[in-house]
Amino acid sequence: MWQHRHLLDLESLTAEEIRLVIDTADAFKDVSTRSVKKVPALRGRVMVNLFFEDSTRTRTSFTLAAQRLSADVIDFSAKGSSVAKGESLTDTARTIEAMGVDLLVCRHPAAGAPHMLTKHVNCCVINAGDGRHEHPTQALLDMFTIRQMKGRIEGLKVAMVGDIANSRVARSNLWGLTKLGAEVTLIGPTTLVPRSFAQFGARVCHDIDAVIGEFDVINMLRVQMERVASNVFPSVREYARLFGLNAERMKRAKPDVLIMHPGPMNRGMEITADVADGRNSAILQQVTNGLAVRMAVLFLCNQAAQRD
Amino acid sequence: MWQHRHLLDLESLTAEEIRLVIDTADAFKDVSTRSVKKVPALRGRVMVNLFFEDSTRTRTSFTLAAQRLSADVIDFSAKGSSVAKGESLTDTARTIEAMGVDLLVCRHPAAGAPHMLTKHVNCCVINAGDGRHEHPTQALLDMFTIRQMKGRIEGLKVAMVGDIANSRVARSNLWGLTKLGAEVTLIGPTTLVPRSFAQFGARVCHDIDAVIGEFDVINMLRVQMERVASNVFPSVREYARLFGLNAERMKRAKPDVLIMHPGPMNRGMEITADVADGRNSAILQQVTNGLAVRMAVLFLCNQAAQRD
Amino acid sequence: MWQHRHLLDLESLTAEEIRLVIDTADAFKDVSTRSVKKVPALRGRVMVNLFFEDSTRTRTSFTLAAQRLSADVIDFSAKGSSVAKGESLTDTARTIEAMGVDLLVCRHPAAGAPHMLTKHVNCCVINAGDGRHEHPTQALLDMFTIRQMKGRIEGLKVAMVGDIANSRVARSNLWGLTKLGAEVTLIGPTTLVPRSFAQFGARVCHDIDAVIGEFDVINMLRVQMERVASNVFPSVREYARLFGLNAERMKRAKPDVLIMHPGPMNRGMEITADVADGRNSAILQQVTNGLAVRMAVLFLCNQAAQRD
Repeated sequence: MWQHRHLLDLESLTAEEIRLVIDTADAFKDVSTRSVKKVPALRGRVMVNLFFEDSTRTRTSFTLAAQRLSADVIDFSAKGSSVAKGESLTDTARTIEAMGVDLLVCRHPAAGAPHMLTKHVNCCVINAGDGRHEHPTQALLDMFTIRQMKGRIEGLKVAMVGDIANSRVARSNLWGLTKLGAEVTLIGPTTLVPRSFAQFGARVCHDIDAVIGEFDVINMLRVQMERVASNVFPSVREYARLFGLNAERMKRAKPDVLIMHPGPMNRGMEITADVADGRNSAILQQVTNGLAVRMAVLFLCNQAAQRD
Repeated sequence: MWQHRHLLDLESLTAEEIRLVIDTADAFKDVSTRSVKKVPALRGRVMVNLFFEDSTRTRTSFTLAAQRLSADVIDFSAKGSSVAKGESLTDTARTIEAMGVDLLVCRHPAAGAPHMLTKHVNCCVINAGDGRHEHPTQALLDMFTIRQMKGRIEGLKVAMVGDIANSRVARSNLWGLTKLGAEVTLIGPTTLVPRSFAQFGARVCHDIDAVIGEFDVINMLRVQMERVASNVFPSVREYARLFGLNAERMKRAKPDVLIMHPGPMNRGMEITADVADGRNSAILQQVTNGLAVRMAVLFLCNQAAQRD
Repeated sequence: MWQHRHLLDLESLTAEEIRLVIDTADAFKDVSTRSVKKVPALRGRVMVNLFFEDSTRTRTSFTLAAQRLSADVIDFSAKGSSVAKGESLTDTARTIEAMGVDLLVCRHPAAGAPHMLTKHVNCCVINAGDGRHEHPTQALLDMFTIRQMKGRIEGLKVAMVGDIANSRVARSNLWGLTKLGAEVTLIGPTTLVPRSFAQFGARVCHDIDAVIGEFDVINMLRVQMERVASNVFPSVREYARLFGLNAERMKRAKPDVLIMHPGPMNRGMEITADVADGRNSAILQQVTNGLAVRMAVLFLCNQAAQRD
């Protein structure tokens, strides 16, 4: 049974618990295909999006998930708010909670911010991305998609390609996938994929062409264009040539390899249009599954909070 | 019967279809006068506002229309979103659709953007203004208002005054009104009302005073202040003197002439306060009717999509 | 019985009417503790937040209150709207009303703006803060909190400390508290607490230490940091030393004194963390009560409008 009122990271979850979220998401998936896409599970509950970094995509996904559960949703934007007036994160969160909010979905540039919040509020805190630390719902929807398309996760060979060092998506996937028995390979330039990641149970590799034929799943991370200017990042053209997924490279991959990307994509950079839209791509499926996974997370955390 | 899952322009609609939207709006009009202003027609459906130009007025009207039909609504603002991160319009729209969205209301500075979207998504696309091309719901609510106040559209003489060349409102009205049998006159400076508009079935005129007595309806377009600085536009005072609607000019108009304006008004520029608030003005009625028309459009497009 | 479709200020309300709002809030308070935090009182009604100054906190409180009454809510932000395009406040409000909106919650930097609106619209207008004039719902929630924690308001000695001259919160509290029979003392530097306030029935005092032992309630106002730079305001350190509430000062206060603050707090400036989070603090309680009070205000004004 799910015992957590918060979802902060995958590092602290058991394989059992991760499977429970995915199974619950599976049950919620059908809601989105109904004519009336709503269940009353969270009616009269309030979810607040507390985003200190812009992310229309993730915020919209959480909002739609909450609406589908019949919850009320409010965006508490950091801009122009008490936050801009110098209020501390803790005071902001406690104020929101005092307004009777049940679920707080938090994105913050500082790793650990959502964890800190749980020390000061009783409402459910869902981590929607904290610095370079974790982005647990993204990893859960990635795993849900893999299981849906491949039938299982255990024993699969999964590659993540890109700026691993700075990616919370990679970190959360790494924790989740290894717990569920997948073999994870991290691929990218030496500056972006440090050897030290081997200690978390992953294989580290700097030459995608040497290994591309092995994988059941390839998860292409988004290149953060603002980092390209820095020394650690090759030029756009260089990166695309060395690590970008294109039709040429796909010829050496398994015929049924699953191609994933957390979005938004830089078409022509880390992935070409033909691969992104090709028959191996599960990229739009990931977006669709994000709703089911977030419905499951909101539902389970709220249920745990009710029991306490 | 309405067969379109999208509403992109009035150019491609038949007179029959335009009348069907107006008739449906008529049926929805009463909902707004009830104590509980809601019908369950779109319960469990999701509408997204995808606006690449600011327009609180149009966006609010669509949102209220959707809420009145019991749909859920989300604003997907272009700022701070994946769009700002360089994602293509197509990818953004496909991502939104993958989240289970049913209705996409799109405003975009490029003519044809909503049309292009329909090639990539299956959800309903409603054009809320695309560049200088069309703004179909504005023209539909204008025609709905004319029919409501005048009892008919056929045979009426309608003037549109202002920057016709750059106005999507004028273009949509021109298509709609001529299809329904009205005689349209376009009035403004030669720089803003090219002779070429005659090919679309309109009379072109550069002297409002010479013809003002003929019209049953005068639709004053908003002066885009940012264009006044350019060479094609006279000074504010000059424009008001030559084309502005004021009490003096109204004396030469028909006593029962209907005065319209799509808003927001520049009082004292294209229209004086006494005319805007006078007994011939249908300006606030237009706003009210906008909701009924948008309810009709959302309802009909969704119904067509359901049938497919 | 409540006869007002608008709530503009406390100056024009009777003690009876203020008590009616507080009693109604008391009845609504339980809704927030239910599992389904919703009553259908305003179903099918529409509330619009028309904020010309940023205030996520107040706006969120009104939004949650409206949702709890089952109303639909729309934010009509001044930025990027018709307002930015030069439309007058009156035209904006009349346009919003023409869309069928029932309740208009308005915050504006100009004192009297909401009063002016009531001359042009029929929908309910709620003042959410107008310049330095009034912030009636803040004062109502403050009084609700005092009555809840102290059992009564009549005969209590209440201090307000800070920039009284520029505070709409202080003005509204002053009107309300004196009407309900409390004795109000205004405390702060001579530049920020003019003697002229005595004419409204308050005692004026410039030395908090001389009088701190007298009060049943101390309401610490937020220091507007942008005013510190000006001549009328001492330095941050100086202000904290002379007027800030800290553990040392609390020793000389009544043991059961109630500490209040409208938020957001500048911890370490007008109040120290230990006092803000201490056992005398009702600061989070104020936030919680804000919802019940705003539910009451929306409910009563809407009811009065229905009767007309």
